[in-house]
Formats: sequence, C-alpha cells, structure tokens
Amino acid sequence: MNGVSRFGGAETRRRFVLRYRSGEYRQEEDVIATEFALTLFVNGEEFSTLVCTPTYAEDLVYGFLASEGVIRDVDDVESIRVSLWTGTARVQTKSGAVLSPALYNKRYIGSCCGKGRQSFYFQSDALTARPVEDPVSLSADDVFRAMDLLDASSGLFEETGGVHVAALVREGQLVLARADIGRHNALDKIYGHCLRAGERLSGTAVAFSGRISSEVLLKVAKIGVGVVIARGAPTLLAVDLAEELNITAIGFVRGRAFNVYSHPWRLADAKKAQGAIEGA
Amino acid sequence: MNGVSRFGGAETRRRFVLRYRSGEYRQEEDVIATEFALTLFVNGEEFSTLVCTPTYAEDLVYGFLASEGVIRDVDDVESIRVSLWTGTARVQTKSGAVLSPALYNKRYIGSCCGKGRQSFYFQSDALTARPVEDPVSLSADDVFRAMDLLDASSGLFEETGGVHVAALVREGQLVLARADIGRHNALDKIYGHCLRAGERLSGTAVAFSGRISSEVLLKVAKIGVGVVIARGAPTLLAVDLAEELNITAIGFVRGRAFNVYSHPWRLADAKKAQGAIEGA
Repeated sequence: MNGVSRFGGAETRRRFVLRYRSGEYRQEEDVIATEFALTLFVNGEEFSTLVCTPTYAEDLVYGFLASEGVIRDVDDVESIRVSLWTGTARVQTKSGAVLSPALYNKRYIGSCCGKGRQSFYFQSDALTARPVEDPVSLSADDVFRAMDLLDASSGLFEETGGVHVAALVREGQLVLARADIGRHNALDKIYGHCLRAGERLSGTAVAFSGRISSEVLLKVAKIGVGVVIARGAPTLLAVDLAEELNITAIGFVRGRAFNVYSHPWRLADAKKAQGAIEGA
Repeated sequence: MNGVSRFGGAETRRRFVLRYRSGEYRQEEDVIATEFALTLFVNGEEFSTLVCTPTYAEDLVYGFLASEGVIRDVDDVESIRVSLWTGTARVQTKSGAVLSPALYNKRYIGSCCGKGRQSFYFQSDALTARPVEDPVSLSADDVFRAMDLLDASSGLFEETGGVHVAALVREGQLVLARADIGRHNALDKIYGHCLRAGERLSGTAVAFSGRISSEVLLKVAKIGVGVVIARGAPTLLAVDLAEELNITAIGFVRGRAFNVYSHPWRLADAKKAQGAIEGA
C-alpha cells in the first residue's frame, strides 16, 4: 500500500487502526491525512522539497516561489510541470537564472544603528515582505464571522485532526480556503491562487486555524493582506513583525473572545479602547 | 522593545494586548511565547538557522546536528559556542569537514525495485534513521500516564497556547520534558540531552503535544525510542515510516481513548486484538 498515497493526490486515506475505548481494543477504520514530498527544480537545479498535502500543487509552487522571491509575478514563469507520480515540480523562469538555495535561507543581518528591518531573520524575507497599506476596517462580528467561514470549510481538518486550514475572506464572504498538513503551505496555496487569478486583495483578511508564527505572519505580508485572524496565539516575534509590517494580528479567537496584538486601528468598534496598546 | 526578546533567552514575555470579551475591548496583559533565530555555523560555514524557543540551546544544537547526520555522537564535537546575544551557535567538529547544507536537504531517491527505503524523502533521513529494536512493553494505563506526565510539565504550553512539548518517559516516570515553538526543536532538545548525558533509551517512550508528522516520527527513530504517544493524529507517511522503523505510533489520545497506528505488539494488554491491524 506504500507509495500510492504519496502519488495519488488524495487528501486522506482510510486505514485500519487499533482503537482503545471504554477499556477495550477494537479494529476500526480511520481517516488519515496524506503527506507528500514535492521536490522543486528551478531551471534544472534542485531548489527545495515541500512536504505537503498533494492538492493545488501548482498554486503551491507559484506561492512558494513568490514567497521566496524567486519570482515576482506569474509572468516570470516560462513553464511549470508538476508530476504527482514522481513527486517533482519543474519550473523554468524567463530569466533562466541558476539559483543557490543556500542564499534564500541565509541569515539576514540588520543595520546595527537601529534603522534596519530588525525583526527579519532571513534575507529573502527582508526582500519580499513589505508593509501592507490596506485601510480595511472590521468589527468584532467580522472576526467571529471569519472564523465561522474558516470552520465551515474545514471538513478535512475536523476529519483527521491533522491539517491546517487558511481562508481568504472579504466582507463576510469566503473568497477561498485551502488545507495542508504544513501550515505555510496552506498560505502558499492561497498566495499562488491569488497571483494566478489576479485576485484583488484590498478589503480581505486571512483566517487561520493554527498559531501565528513569524513565518505565518511573513506569508500574510507577502500575500499583501492587512489582517490575520487565528485560532491560536502569535509568538512575540510575529507580533513585532506585525507592528513593522502594518498588519492587524488577531489571535486566540475562542468562543466570543479574542485578542488584538497589533494595529488595532483597523477595528472600527474599538476606537475608544485602541489607545490602550498603542500607548503601552 | 524589539530585540530584547530575541536575545534574552526567556521563554515568554508579558505584553499588553487589546482583549475583546463580553462585548467590550479592554487593555490586558498577556503572556506571549518568544521566538528566536539561532544561526548555526559548522566549521566556519553557515549551515542552518533554527527558529526556536531560546532555552537548552546547546542541547538543541547537539540534537539537530545528530539528527542531520553531521555528528554521530558528542565526541565528534571539538567545541561549541552558543551566543544568545548574537543569535549564533559556532560548532567545530573533530573532522573539520566543510559541509554543504544543500546536501542535507537533498531528495532521497529510493530503489525502484521495491527494496529501497521507500518512505524516506531526504538523504540525511535515510542515512540516520534506523529501525528501533527496543522490546519495551506498555499498557493502556501507561499511555494515559505518559500524557498526564506531559500535561503536568506543560506550564508554558498552557500559558501561551503557543508551544509544543515533548517528554521522555520510562515506567510511569518523567525522565525529562522540553518545550519549543518548533515541534522538531522540542525533540532535538531531548535528543541532545540524551546524547550528552549518555541517557539509556531502552524502556522509554516519547510523549508529544502535537501531531505526528513524518518529521516527528523520524526524530523519534533517530533518538532511538520505540514508542511515540501523541495528542494529535499521525499523517499517513508517518504511519508508513513507523511501520518501517519498528515504532509503535499511538495518537489521538483524548479522554480515555486512543488509536494505535503501527506495531501494536508493544501493547501487552492488546494481545487479543492486535491481529486486527497486522492482518489489515
């Protein structure tokens, strides 16, 4: 049975497990999330291997390459060929430049006089993540509505307990939702879709099932969305980056409560209270 | 305030957030997990940047290097110097070999006649992960006890909702527990400790707060532990790897129930039922 799951493109597979419940072991069928390795070749050179859920693979590749700064838009791609059989994506860029993967993971050393972009850790991030100017305004109800839309599109997540889901929402409507076992991949699939479809991003927010790590925050900035709303909490670095990149980071959405960690000016119904964290 | 958190070595920091609850926004103090980038130089060359919780940094470096196959044991390290101020770890190995980071992330191509290690994606994993022979035996009560020990050591996790915790347990006792914002780092910190302390691994299990991805499963194999017990579910690839590496993978431990995904022979109280998934 090995192998099929890795090349079949399915999000899940059924498999027998031994389930312990009420003091007894029983054989039961379970639904398990697939995990797939897609090795990316750029202009003939091995660039990176993405461990992912094998759906929307082309969007994933576009989003990842844009996120890493390898391409700026879809026109930079001459051709792309994804094979779920061999687990490879072969991309030819118009420039044809040979890339060094090591460069893209190189540590970014900020200015020591305090004017550099001090929160960045990787050179590629410092090059590709820009402050988001979108003046989108939202209310507490919009926050809960975004999480409801996320939950409604989280079939796979609930079924397997094993994937992350990201959704792009605008004015209380779902634009698109993507799931992946890798938290960044779900966001790259959204990024790739938006690039290819020429999706307008003003007025949108990203809803996310997990925590807001620095990488999640950077992906949101790279996509160009001004608001991230997450079930989980952010890290301190993610909050610092959100401040720097002009992103409203909302987390810990549980029941009818949530926290705003940065740029509360986008929450129209919090005008009175927003001095609170700005003055802190 | 930027910067301090990245070099201070603290697991958390207090910060003001705008909290929405019961229909109102209020300024409140919150505890947020720190996120730190530790750039690793091996024999003078930049090797990798680990985004982590800045605790047990030396253990993390030892565990990571062993996991990547750069060192086999502590004696391979000539010297190690960790600076939380500059965010760097400088390691000199006895061999002094200059390493290419790209090699360590190279896609592993298995044998096409079906006898290769087909579930591996990375060359370094295929070299360093070996089947675990430990005949350790456990019961359903041991599974719940392991999760209780994990929960009892999860102060930071519960406080911030933002980190993963891994614990090494033996015969109902906690050996050690480590937390990190990166799921693999928590395991590398345990690995590094075990290598440096010469910790005996027979009879142990790893308890883990998150999902069992292929990378988590591979780390458990590399550490040399035969049982992994997780709050979350495994991916299908992790189950395949567990089968291949002779690891008993137990997941979805919720309340008084759990699933056994591979090698149920280690569960002494499941003798009758264990034919179930072996024959599936």
